[in-house]
Amino acid sequence: MNPKELATAVAASMWSVDVATKDTMQMRLITAEPGRAVSEMQVRELHLNGHQICHGGFIFTLADSTFAFACNSYNKVAVAAGCSIEFLKPAHLGDVLTCEGVEQTLSGRHGIYDMRVTNQRGETIAMFRGKSAQIAGTVIPEA
Amino acid sequence: MNPKELATAVAASMWSVDVATKDTMQMRLITAEPGRAVSEMQVRELHLNGHQICHGGFIFTLADSTFAFACNSYNKVAVAAGCSIEFLKPAHLGDVLTCEGVEQTLSGRHGIYDMRVTNQRGETIAMFRGKSAQIAGTVIPEA
Amino acid sequence: MNPKELATAVAASMWSVDVATKDTMQMRLITAEPGRAVSEMQVRELHLNGHQICHGGFIFTLADSTFAFACNSYNKVAVAAGCSIEFLKPAHLGDVLTCEGVEQTLSGRHGIYDMRVTNQRGETIAMFRGKSAQIAGTVIPEA
Amino acid sequence: MNPKELATAVAASMWSVDVATKDTMQMRLITAEPGRAVSEMQVRELHLNGHQICHGGFIFTLADSTFAFACNSYNKVAVAAGCSIEFLKPAHLGDVLTCEGVEQTLSGRHGIYDMRVTNQRGETIAMFRGKSAQIAGTVIPEA
Repeated sequence: MNPKELATAVAASMWSVDVATKDTMQMRLITAEPGRAVSEMQVRELHLNGHQICHGGFIFTLADSTFAFACNSYNKVAVAAGCSIEFLKPAHLGDVLTCEGVEQTLSGRHGIYDMRVTNQRGETIAMFRGKSAQIAGTVIPEA
Repeated sequence: MNPKELATAVAASMWSVDVATKDTMQMRLITAEPGRAVSEMQVRELHLNGHQICHGGFIFTLADSTFAFACNSYNKVAVAAGCSIEFLKPAHLGDVLTCEGVEQTLSGRHGIYDMRVTNQRGETIAMFRGKSAQIAGTVIPEA
Repeated sequence: MNPKELATAVAASMWSVDVATKDTMQMRLITAEPGRAVSEMQVRELHLNGHQICHGGFIFTLADSTFAFACNSYNKVAVAAGCSIEFLKPAHLGDVLTCEGVEQTLSGRHGIYDMRVTNQRGETIAMFRGKSAQIAGTVIPEA
Repeated sequence: MNPKELATAVAASMWSVDVATKDTMQMRLITAEPGRAVSEMQVRELHLNGHQICHGGFIFTLADSTFAFACNSYNKVAVAAGCSIEFLKPAHLGDVLTCEGVEQTLSGRHGIYDMRVTNQRGETIAMFRGKSAQIAGTVIPEA
Protein backbone atom coordinates (compact mmCIF):
# COMPACT_ATOMS: atom_id res chain seq x y z
CA MET A 1 0.00 0.00 0.00
CA ASN A 2 1.21 3.51 -0.74
CA PRO A 3 0.78 6.21 1.93
CA LYS A 4 -2.62 7.35 0.61
CA GLU A 5 -3.94 3.79 0.51
CA LEU A 6 -2.60 3.17 3.99
CA ALA A 7 -4.31 6.29 5.35
CA THR A 8 -7.58 5.19 3.76
CA ALA A 9 -7.33 1.68 5.18
CA VAL A 10 -6.48 2.98 8.66
CA ALA A 11 -9.41 5.38 8.61
CA ALA A 12 -11.79 2.67 7.42
CA SER A 13 -10.68 0.43 10.25
CA MET A 14 -11.08 3.17 12.88
CA TRP A 15 -14.41 4.25 11.46
CA SER A 16 -15.98 0.82 11.47
CA VAL A 17 -15.84 0.57 15.27
CA ASP A 18 -16.30 4.25 16.18
CA VAL A 19 -19.84 4.29 17.58
CA ALA A 20 -19.48 7.85 18.88
CA THR A 21 -18.56 9.33 15.53
CA LYS A 22 -20.72 7.40 13.11
CA ASP A 23 -23.77 6.42 15.15
CA THR A 24 -24.14 8.91 17.99
CA MET A 25 -22.93 11.96 16.05
CA GLN A 26 -23.88 10.74 12.56
CA MET A 27 -20.80 12.17 10.91
CA ARG A 28 -19.48 11.20 7.53
CA LEU A 29 -15.82 10.71 6.72
CA ILE A 30 -15.05 12.24 3.34
CA THR A 31 -11.38 11.53 2.97
CA ALA A 32 -8.27 10.53 4.88
CA GLU A 33 -4.80 11.06 3.52
CA PRO A 34 -1.35 11.21 5.08
CA GLY A 35 -1.64 14.03 7.61
CA ARG A 36 -5.02 15.23 6.39
CA ALA A 37 -8.70 14.36 6.75
CA VAL A 38 -12.09 15.80 5.89
CA SER A 39 -15.38 15.00 7.66
CA GLU A 40 -18.93 16.27 7.48
CA MET A 41 -21.92 16.47 9.79
CA GLN A 42 -25.41 17.82 9.28
CA VAL A 43 -26.82 19.55 12.34
CA ARG A 44 -29.85 17.57 13.57
CA GLU A 45 -32.24 17.83 16.51
CA LEU A 46 -29.94 15.58 18.52
CA HIS A 47 -27.13 18.17 18.27
CA LEU A 48 -29.10 21.14 19.62
CA ASN A 49 -28.41 22.72 22.98
CA GLY A 50 -30.64 24.93 25.09
CA HIS A 51 -30.17 27.91 22.76
CA GLN A 52 -31.43 25.73 19.86
CA ILE A 53 -28.07 25.85 18.12
CA CYS A 54 -25.53 23.08 17.65
CA HIS A 55 -23.85 22.26 20.96
CA GLY A 56 -20.28 23.56 20.88
CA GLY A 57 -19.18 20.21 22.23
CA PHE A 58 -20.39 18.55 19.04
CA ILE A 59 -18.59 21.01 16.80
CA PHE A 60 -15.52 20.14 18.87
CA THR A 61 -16.33 16.45 18.44
CA LEU A 62 -16.53 16.82 14.66
CA ALA A 63 -13.10 18.45 14.70
CA ASP A 64 -11.68 15.95 17.19
CA SER A 65 -12.76 12.97 15.08
CA THR A 66 -11.30 14.54 11.96
CA PHE A 67 -8.11 15.20 13.90
CA ALA A 68 -7.99 11.52 14.90
CA PHE A 69 -8.20 10.41 11.27
CA ALA A 70 -5.47 12.84 10.27
CA CYS A 71 -3.01 12.07 13.06
CA ASN A 72 -3.47 8.28 12.83
CA SER A 73 -3.06 8.30 9.05
CA TYR A 74 0.47 6.86 9.15
CA ASN A 75 -0.80 3.75 10.96
CA LYS A 76 0.98 4.65 14.17
CA VAL A 77 -1.52 4.95 17.00
CA ALA A 78 -1.79 8.58 18.03
CA VAL A 79 -3.90 10.11 20.77
CA ALA A 80 -5.01 13.65 21.48
CA ALA A 81 -2.99 15.26 24.26
CA GLY A 82 -4.75 18.58 24.17
CA CYS A 83 -6.94 20.70 21.96
CA SER A 84 -8.21 24.23 21.73
CA ILE A 85 -11.14 25.60 19.81
CA GLU A 86 -12.41 29.07 18.96
CA PHE A 87 -16.10 29.41 18.23
CA LEU A 88 -16.76 32.06 15.58
CA LYS A 89 -20.37 31.60 14.47
CA PRO A 90 -23.26 29.42 15.62
CA ALA A 91 -24.47 26.44 13.59
CA HIS A 92 -28.20 25.97 13.12
CA LEU A 93 -30.52 23.03 12.49
CA GLY A 94 -29.98 21.74 8.98
CA ASP A 95 -26.58 23.34 8.46
CA VAL A 96 -24.01 21.09 6.85
CA LEU A 97 -20.66 21.41 8.59
CA THR A 98 -17.46 20.40 6.88
CA CYS A 99 -14.24 20.00 8.81
CA GLU A 100 -10.90 19.95 7.07
CA GLY A 101 -7.86 19.08 9.12
CA VAL A 102 -4.26 19.49 8.09
CA GLU A 103 -1.01 18.59 9.76
CA GLN A 104 1.12 21.61 10.65
CA THR A 105 4.08 19.82 12.17
CA LEU A 106 5.06 16.28 13.04
CA SER A 107 8.31 16.09 14.91
CA GLY A 108 9.18 12.81 16.53
CA ARG A 109 6.05 11.52 18.19
CA HIS A 110 4.38 14.92 18.56
CA GLY A 111 2.17 16.59 15.99
CA ILE A 112 0.06 19.70 15.64
CA TYR A 113 -3.03 19.61 13.46
CA ASP A 114 -5.36 22.47 12.54
CA MET A 115 -9.02 21.94 11.75
CA ARG A 116 -11.29 24.47 10.14
CA VAL A 117 -15.04 23.95 10.38
CA THR A 118 -17.12 25.68 7.73
CA ASN A 119 -20.82 25.70 6.98
CA GLN A 120 -22.59 25.23 3.62
CA ARG A 121 -22.03 28.91 2.80
CA GLY A 122 -18.29 28.54 3.24
CA GLU A 123 -18.25 30.58 6.45
CA THR A 124 -15.72 29.49 9.05
CA ILE A 125 -17.63 28.68 12.22
CA ALA A 126 -14.79 27.26 14.32
CA MET A 127 -11.03 26.83 14.33
CA PHE A 128 -9.53 23.91 16.25
CA ARG A 129 -5.92 23.05 17.02
CA GLY A 130 -4.98 19.61 18.28
CA LYS A 131 -1.75 18.28 19.74
CA SER A 132 -1.18 14.58 19.18
CA ALA A 133 1.19 12.08 20.70
CA GLN A 134 2.02 8.79 19.04
CA ILE A 135 1.98 5.84 21.40
CA ALA A 136 3.03 2.21 20.85
CA GLY A 137 1.18 0.12 18.30
CA THR A 138 -0.38 0.30 14.86
CA VAL A 139 -4.04 0.80 13.97
CA ILE A 140 -4.10 -2.02 11.43
CA PRO A 141 -1.59 -4.89 11.17
CA GLU A 142 1.56 -3.86 9.33
CA ALA A 143 1.87 -5.48 5.92
CA MET B 1 -34.88 34.95 44.34
CA ASN B 2 -31.42 35.08 45.85
CA PRO B 3 -28.37 34.43 43.64
CA LYS B 4 -28.31 30.68 44.38
CA GLU B 5 -32.02 30.32 43.62
CA LEU B 6 -31.59 32.34 40.44
CA ALA B 7 -28.72 30.12 39.29
CA THR B 8 -30.82 27.03 39.94
CA ALA B 9 -33.81 28.42 38.06
CA VAL B 10 -31.65 29.46 35.10
CA ALA B 11 -30.04 26.04 34.92
CA ALA B 12 -33.40 24.29 35.12
CA SER B 13 -34.67 26.40 32.24
CA MET B 14 -31.61 25.73 30.09
CA TRP B 15 -31.60 22.04 30.91
CA SER B 16 -35.23 21.47 30.00
CA VAL B 17 -34.63 22.27 26.32
CA ASP B 18 -31.05 21.03 25.96
CA VAL B 19 -31.51 17.89 23.86
CA ALA B 20 -27.76 17.53 23.27
CA THR B 21 -26.85 17.45 26.94
CA LYS B 22 -29.69 15.51 28.50
CA ASP B 23 -30.87 13.19 25.72
CA THR B 24 -27.98 12.67 23.31
CA MET B 25 -25.21 12.71 25.94
CA GLN B 26 -27.32 11.52 28.88
CA MET B 27 -25.62 13.82 31.36
CA ARG B 28 -26.97 14.76 34.75
CA LEU B 29 -26.78 18.25 36.23
CA ILE B 30 -25.86 18.02 39.90
CA THR B 31 -25.79 21.64 40.94
CA ALA B 32 -25.64 25.17 39.60
CA GLU B 33 -24.64 28.12 41.74
CA PRO B 34 -23.41 31.62 40.98
CA GLY B 35 -20.25 31.02 38.95
CA ARG B 36 -20.11 27.29 39.59
CA ALA B 37 -21.71 24.08 38.32
CA VAL B 38 -21.27 20.32 38.66
CA SER B 39 -22.39 17.70 36.13
CA GLU B 40 -22.04 13.97 35.74
CA MET B 41 -22.00 11.44 32.92
CA GLN B 42 -21.60 7.70 32.90
CA VAL B 43 -19.63 6.40 29.93
CA ARG B 44 -21.94 4.25 27.80
CA GLU B 45 -21.61 2.39 24.49
CA LEU B 46 -22.82 5.49 22.67
CA HIS B 47 -19.78 7.44 23.94
CA LEU B 48 -17.10 5.02 22.70
CA ASN B 49 -14.74 5.83 19.87
CA GLY B 50 -12.69 3.49 17.71
CA HIS B 51 -10.26 2.78 20.55
CA GLN B 52 -13.21 1.65 22.71
CA ILE B 53 -12.71 4.54 25.12
CA CYS B 54 -14.88 7.59 25.67
CA HIS B 55 -14.57 9.95 22.70
CA GLY B 56 -12.56 13.00 23.75
CA GLY B 57 -15.23 15.13 22.13
CA PHE B 58 -17.75 13.89 24.67
CA ILE B 59 -15.47 14.60 27.62
CA PHE B 60 -15.18 18.09 26.14
CA THR B 61 -18.96 18.21 25.77
CA LEU B 62 -19.47 17.30 29.44
CA ALA B 63 -17.14 20.14 30.39
CA ASP B 64 -18.66 22.55 27.89
CA SER B 65 -22.18 21.95 29.20
CA THR B 66 -21.03 22.42 32.77
CA PHE B 67 -19.27 25.60 31.69
CA ALA B 68 -22.53 26.84 30.16
CA PHE B 69 -24.42 26.33 33.42
CA ALA B 70 -21.70 28.13 35.37
CA CYS B 71 -21.30 31.13 33.07
CA ASN B 72 -25.05 31.65 32.58
CA SER B 73 -25.74 31.39 36.30
CA TYR B 74 -26.30 35.14 36.73
CA ASN B 75 -29.17 35.05 34.20
CA LYS B 76 -27.23 37.04 31.64
CA VAL B 77 -26.91 35.05 28.42
CA ALA B 78 -23.29 34.02 27.96
CA VAL B 79 -21.73 32.07 25.13
CA ALA B 80 -18.45 30.21 24.79
CA ALA B 81 -15.89 32.17 22.79
CA GLY B 82 -13.12 29.62 23.05
CA CYS B 83 -12.07 26.62 25.07
CA SER B 84 -9.04 24.44 25.59
CA ILE B 85 -8.81 20.99 27.04
CA GLU B 86 -5.97 18.75 28.16
CA PHE B 87 -6.62 15.02 28.15
CA LEU B 88 -4.81 13.26 30.99
CA LYS B 89 -6.28 9.76 31.23
CA PRO B 90 -8.75 7.77 29.14
CA ALA B 91 -12.29 7.06 30.37
CA HIS B 92 -13.67 3.55 29.96
CA LEU B 93 -17.12 2.01 29.57
CA GLY B 94 -18.97 2.28 32.86
CA ASP B 95 -16.79 5.03 34.33
CA VAL B 96 -18.69 7.78 36.08
CA LEU B 97 -17.28 11.17 35.15
CA THR B 98 -17.88 14.19 37.31
CA CYS B 99 -17.14 17.68 36.07
CA GLU B 100 -16.81 20.58 38.46
CA GLY B 101 -16.53 24.03 36.98
CA VAL B 102 -15.54 27.18 38.81
CA GLU B 103 -15.32 30.80 37.73
CA GLN B 104 -11.78 32.16 37.82
CA THR B 105 -12.52 35.71 36.69
CA LEU B 106 -15.47 37.71 35.48
CA SER B 107 -14.54 41.16 34.33
CA GLY B 108 -17.13 43.12 32.43
CA ARG B 109 -18.70 40.74 29.95
CA HIS B 110 -15.75 38.34 29.81
CA GLY B 111 -15.20 35.37 32.08
CA ILE B 112 -12.79 32.51 32.48
CA TYR B 113 -14.01 29.22 33.91
CA ASP B 114 -12.01 26.11 34.77
CA MET B 115 -13.50 22.63 34.66
CA ARG B 116 -11.93 19.54 36.14
CA VAL B 117 -13.23 16.15 35.03
CA THR B 118 -12.60 13.29 37.43
CA ASN B 119 -13.56 9.63 37.38
CA GLN B 120 -15.11 7.51 40.16
CA ARG B 121 -11.65 6.95 41.66
CA GLY B 122 -11.08 10.67 41.98
CA GLU B 123 -8.46 10.72 39.23
CA THR B 124 -8.39 13.83 37.07
CA ILE B 125 -8.91 12.75 33.49
CA ALA B 126 -9.20 16.16 31.83
CA MET B 127 -8.76 19.87 32.53
CA PHE B 128 -10.80 22.38 30.54
CA ARG B 129 -10.64 26.16 30.43
CA GLY B 130 -13.46 28.15 28.86
CA LYS B 131 -13.69 31.82 27.90
CA SER B 132 -17.21 33.23 27.97
CA ALA B 133 -18.73 36.39 26.58
CA GLN B 134 -22.02 37.76 27.84
CA ILE B 135 -24.36 38.89 25.07
CA ALA B 136 -27.68 40.72 25.22
CA GLY B 137 -30.61 39.09 26.95
CA THR B 138 -31.54 36.99 29.94
CA VAL B 139 -32.05 33.23 30.12
CA ILE B 140 -35.29 33.49 32.10
CA PRO B 141 -37.53 36.57 32.40
CA GLU B 142 -36.25 39.00 35.00
CA ALA B 143 -38.44 39.16 38.08
CA MET C 1 -2.01 54.24 -0.19
CA ASN C 2 -2.92 50.74 -1.29
CA PRO C 3 -3.41 48.01 1.35
CA LYS C 4 0.23 46.87 1.22
CA GLU C 5 1.53 50.44 1.57
CA LEU C 6 -0.89 51.05 4.42
CA ALA C 7 0.27 47.91 6.25
CA THR C 8 3.88 49.01 5.84
CA ALA C 9 3.18 52.51 7.12
CA VAL C 10 1.22 51.19 10.11
CA ALA C 11 4.02 48.79 11.02
CA ALA C 12 6.65 51.51 10.71
CA SER C 13 4.65 53.72 13.04
CA MET C 14 4.17 50.97 15.63
CA TRP C 15 7.79 49.88 15.38
CA SER C 16 9.26 53.33 15.94
CA VAL C 17 7.89 53.53 19.49
CA ASP C 18 8.00 49.86 20.47
CA VAL C 19 10.88 49.78 22.95
CA ALA C 20 10.10 46.23 24.03
CA THR C 21 10.35 44.76 20.56
CA LYS C 22 13.18 46.72 19.00
CA ASP C 23 15.39 47.67 21.95
CA THR C 24 14.80 45.16 24.73
CA MET C 25 14.30 42.12 22.48
CA GLN C 26 16.36 43.36 19.51
CA MET C 27 14.00 41.95 16.93
CA ARG C 28 13.88 42.94 13.29
CA LEU C 29 10.68 43.45 11.33
CA ILE C 30 11.07 41.94 7.87
CA THR C 31 7.73 42.65 6.30
CA ALA C 32 4.16 43.65 7.09
CA GLU C 33 1.33 43.12 4.65
CA PRO C 34 -2.44 42.98 4.99
CA GLY C 35 -3.02 40.14 7.44
CA ARG C 36 0.59 38.94 7.41
CA ALA C 37 3.95 39.81 8.97
CA VAL C 38 7.44 38.36 9.28
CA SER C 39 9.95 39.13 12.04
CA GLU C 40 13.35 37.88 13.03
CA MET C 41 15.42 37.64 16.20
CA GLN C 42 18.88 36.29 16.87
CA VAL C 43 19.22 34.54 20.21
CA ARG C 44 21.65 36.51 22.37
CA GLU C 45 22.92 36.23 25.95
CA LEU C 46 20.10 38.46 27.10
CA HIS C 47 17.56 35.90 25.92
CA LEU C 48 18.95 32.90 27.82
CA ASN C 49 17.18 31.30 30.75
CA GLY C 50 18.58 29.07 33.47
CA HIS C 51 18.93 26.13 31.09
CA GLN C 52 21.06 28.31 28.79
CA ILE C 53 18.46 28.21 26.04
CA CYS C 54 16.23 30.98 24.76
CA HIS C 55 13.54 31.78 27.34
CA GLY C 56 10.21 30.49 26.08
CA GLY C 57 8.72 33.83 27.01
CA PHE C 58 10.92 35.52 24.42
CA ILE C 59 9.97 33.07 21.69
CA PHE C 60 6.39 33.94 22.63
CA THR C 61 7.29 37.62 22.52
CA LEU C 62 8.73 37.29 19.01
CA ALA C 63 5.48 35.66 17.90
CA ASP C 64 3.32 38.14 19.80
CA SER C 65 5.02 41.14 18.19
CA THR C 66 4.69 39.60 14.75
CA PHE C 67 1.04 38.93 15.52
CA ALA C 68 0.59 42.60 16.44
CA PHE C 69 1.99 43.75 13.10
CA ALA C 70 -0.26 41.33 11.23
CA CYS C 71 -3.50 42.09 13.07
CA ASN C 72 -3.00 45.87 13.03
CA SER C 73 -2.13 45.87 9.32
CA TYR C 74 -5.50 47.32 8.25
CA ASN C 75 -4.90 50.41 10.40
CA LYS C 76 -7.63 49.50 12.84
CA VAL C 77 -6.21 49.17 16.34
CA ALA C 78 -6.30 45.53 17.38
CA VAL C 79 -5.22 43.97 20.65
CA ALA C 80 -4.40 40.42 21.65
CA ALA C 81 -7.23 38.81 23.61
CA GLY C 82 -5.53 35.48 24.08
CA CYS C 83 -2.73 33.38 22.70
CA SER C 84 -1.46 29.84 22.89
CA ILE C 85 1.94 28.48 22.03
CA GLU C 86 3.42 25.02 21.63
CA PHE C 87 7.14 24.67 22.14
CA LEU C 88 8.64 22.04 19.84
CA LYS C 89 12.41 22.50 19.99
CA PRO C 90 14.76 24.66 22.06
CA ALA C 91 16.58 27.65 20.55
CA HIS C 92 20.25 28.11 21.34
CA LEU C 93 22.63 31.05 21.54
CA GLY C 94 23.29 32.38 18.06
CA ASP C 95 20.25 30.78 16.45
CA VAL C 96 18.37 33.05 14.09
CA LEU C 97 14.63 32.72 14.62
CA THR C 98 12.16 33.75 11.95
CA CYS C 99 8.50 34.14 12.72
CA GLU C 100 5.93 34.20 9.97
CA GLY C 101 2.38 35.07 10.90
CA VAL C 102 -0.69 34.68 8.74
CA GLU C 103 -4.32 35.57 9.26
CA GLN C 104 -6.60 32.56 9.37
CA THR C 105 -9.91 34.34 9.83
CA LEU C 106 -11.13 37.86 10.36
CA SER C 107 -14.82 38.06 11.04
CA GLY C 108 -16.17 41.35 12.30
CA ARG C 109 -13.75 42.59 14.92
CA HIS C 110 -12.31 39.19 15.78
CA GLY C 111 -9.38 37.53 14.09
CA ILE C 112 -7.27 34.42 14.44
CA TYR C 113 -3.62 34.51 13.41
CA ASP C 114 -1.12 31.68 13.28
CA MET C 115 2.59 32.19 13.75
CA ARG C 116 5.28 29.66 12.96
CA VAL C 117 8.73 30.18 14.43
CA THR C 118 11.57 28.46 12.61
CA ASN C 119 15.31 28.42 13.12
CA GLN C 120 18.08 28.92 10.55
CA ARG C 121 17.84 25.25 9.59
CA GLY C 122 14.17 25.63 8.74
CA GLU C 123 13.06 23.58 11.75
CA THR C 124 9.82 24.65 13.37
CA ILE C 125 10.57 25.43 17.00
CA ALA C 126 7.20 26.85 18.06
CA MET C 127 3.64 27.29 16.84
CA PHE C 128 1.59 30.19 18.17
CA ARG C 129 -2.07 31.05 17.68
CA GLY C 130 -3.37 34.49 18.58
CA LYS C 131 -6.90 35.82 18.92
CA SER C 132 -7.26 39.52 18.22
CA ALA C 133 -10.00 42.01 18.89
CA GLN C 134 -10.23 45.32 17.07
CA ILE C 135 -10.98 48.27 19.32
CA ALA C 136 -11.77 51.89 18.50
CA GLY C 137 -9.18 54.00 16.73
CA THR C 138 -6.58 53.85 14.00
CA VAL C 139 -2.84 53.35 14.36
CA ILE C 140 -1.94 56.19 11.99
CA PRO C 141 -4.22 59.06 10.94
CA GLU C 142 -6.59 58.07 8.16
CA ALA C 143 -5.79 59.70 4.84
CA MET D 1 16.28 18.86 52.90
CA ASN D 2 12.52 18.72 53.19
CA PRO D 3 10.37 19.41 50.10
CA LYS D 4 10.07 23.15 50.82
CA GLU D 5 13.83 23.51 51.33
CA LEU D 6 14.47 21.52 48.17
CA ALA D 7 12.13 23.77 46.16
CA THR D 8 13.89 26.84 47.50
CA ALA D 9 17.34 25.46 46.68
CA VAL D 10 16.27 24.45 43.16
CA ALA D 11 14.81 27.88 42.50
CA ALA D 12 17.93 29.62 43.81
CA SER D 13 20.07 27.54 41.50
CA MET D 14 17.91 28.23 38.45
CA TRP D 15 17.61 31.90 39.29
CA SER D 16 21.34 32.51 39.61
CA VAL D 17 21.97 31.72 35.94
CA ASP D 18 18.71 32.96 34.43
CA VAL D 19 19.82 36.12 32.63
CA ALA D 20 16.49 36.49 30.85
CA THR D 21 14.41 36.54 34.00
CA LYS D 22 16.58 38.47 36.42
CA ASP D 23 18.60 40.80 34.20
CA THR D 24 16.68 41.36 30.99
CA MET D 25 13.19 41.30 32.56
CA GLN D 26 14.22 42.45 36.06
CA MET D 27 11.81 40.14 37.83
CA ARG D 28 11.95 39.17 41.45
CA LEU D 29 11.30 35.66 42.74
CA ILE D 30 9.22 35.85 45.91
CA THR D 31 8.81 32.23 46.83
CA ALA D 32 9.13 28.72 45.47
CA GLU D 33 7.48 25.77 47.13
CA PRO D 34 6.58 22.27 45.98
CA GLY D 35 4.26 22.87 43.04
CA ARG D 36 3.92 26.60 43.63
CA ALA D 37 5.83 29.83 42.99
CA VAL D 38 5.30 33.57 43.20
CA SER D 39 7.18 36.22 41.20
CA GLU D 40 6.96 39.96 40.76
CA MET D 41 7.86 42.51 38.10
CA GLN D 42 7.50 46.25 37.97
CA VAL D 43 6.60 47.59 34.54
CA ARG D 44 9.49 49.76 33.29
CA GLU D 45 10.27 51.62 30.08
CA LEU D 46 12.01 48.55 28.73
CA HIS D 47 8.72 46.60 28.91
CA LEU D 48 6.61 49.04 26.89
CA ASN D 49 5.31 48.23 23.43
CA GLY D 50 4.09 50.61 20.74
CA HIS D 51 0.84 51.31 22.61
CA GLN D 52 2.91 52.40 25.65
CA ILE D 53 1.65 49.50 27.73
CA CYS D 54 3.53 46.45 28.94
CA HIS D 55 4.22 44.10 26.01
CA GLY D 56 1.97 41.05 26.31
CA GLY D 57 5.01 38.92 25.65
CA PHE D 58 6.57 40.14 28.88
CA ILE D 59 3.44 39.42 30.91
CA PHE D 60 3.66 35.95 29.39
CA THR D 61 7.36 35.82 30.29
CA LEU D 62 6.62 36.69 33.91
CA ALA D 63 4.11 33.85 34.04
CA ASP D 64 6.38 31.45 32.16
CA SER D 65 9.28 32.04 34.55
CA THR D 66 7.00 31.54 37.54
CA PHE D 67 5.71 28.38 35.91
CA ALA D 68 9.30 27.14 35.53
CA PHE D 69 10.00 27.62 39.23
CA ALA D 70 6.80 25.80 40.17
CA CYS D 71 7.18 22.83 37.84
CA ASN D 72 10.88 22.30 38.59
CA SER D 73 10.29 22.52 42.34
CA TYR D 74 10.69 18.77 42.88
CA ASN D 75 14.22 18.89 41.46
CA LYS D 76 13.26 16.91 38.37
CA VAL D 77 14.00 18.94 35.25
CA ALA D 78 10.73 19.97 33.65
CA VAL D 79 10.20 21.95 30.46
CA ALA D 80 7.21 23.82 29.09
CA ALA D 81 5.45 21.88 26.35
CA GLY D 82 2.76 24.43 25.72
CA CYS D 83 1.10 27.42 27.29
CA SER D 84 -1.94 29.59 26.80
CA ILE D 85 -2.66 33.04 28.12
CA GLU D 86 -5.69 35.28 28.25
CA PHE D 87 -5.09 39.00 28.49
CA LEU D 88 -7.73 40.75 30.59
CA LYS D 89 -6.42 44.24 31.32
CA PRO D 90 -3.40 46.24 30.19
CA ALA D 91 -0.46 46.93 32.52
CA HIS D 92 0.97 50.45 32.62
CA LEU D 93 4.34 51.98 33.41
CA GLY D 94 5.01 51.68 37.12
CA ASP D 95 2.47 48.93 37.77
CA VAL D 96 3.70 46.15 40.01
CA LEU D 97 2.67 42.78 38.66
CA THR D 98 2.54 39.71 40.87
CA CYS D 99 2.25 36.26 39.43
CA GLU D 100 1.15 33.34 41.54
CA GLY D 101 1.38 29.89 40.02
CA VAL D 102 -0.15 26.73 41.39
CA GLU D 103 0.00 23.13 40.26
CA GLN D 104 -3.37 21.76 39.19
CA THR D 105 -2.32 18.22 38.33
CA LEU D 106 0.89 16.23 38.14
CA SER D 107 0.39 12.80 36.72
CA GLY D 108 3.46 10.85 35.77
CA ARG D 109 5.76 13.24 33.95
CA HIS D 110 3.03 15.65 32.87
CA GLY D 111 1.75 18.60 34.86
CA ILE D 112 -0.68 21.47 34.46
CA TYR D 113 0.02 24.75 36.25
CA ASP D 114 -2.15 27.85 36.43
CA MET D 115 -0.71 31.33 36.85
CA ARG D 116 -2.69 34.40 37.77
CA VAL D 117 -1.10 37.80 37.17
CA THR D 118 -2.49 40.64 39.24
CA ASN D 119 -1.57 44.30 39.54
CA GLN D 120 -1.03 46.38 42.69
CA ARG D 121 -4.79 46.95 42.96
CA GLY D 122 -5.43 43.22 43.05
CA GLU D 123 -6.99 43.20 39.60
CA THR D 124 -6.36 40.11 37.52
CA ILE D 125 -4.68 41.22 34.30
CA ALA D 126 -3.86 37.82 32.80
CA MET D 127 -4.50 34.12 33.30
CA PHE D 128 -1.92 31.61 32.07
CA ARG D 129 -2.02 27.83 31.88
CA GLY D 130 1.15 25.85 31.30
CA LYS D 131 1.69 22.19 30.46
CA SER D 132 4.99 20.77 31.65
CA ALA D 133 6.88 17.63 30.83
CA GLN D 134 9.59 16.25 33.07
CA ILE D 135 12.70 15.13 31.23
CA ALA D 136 15.79 13.29 32.44
CA GLY D 137 18.00 14.90 35.05
CA THR D 138 17.87 16.97 38.20
CA VAL D 139 18.31 20.72 38.56
CA ILE D 140 20.71 20.44 41.50
CA PRO D 141 22.72 17.35 42.49
CA GLU D 142 20.66 14.90 44.51
CA ALA D 143 21.69 14.71 48.13
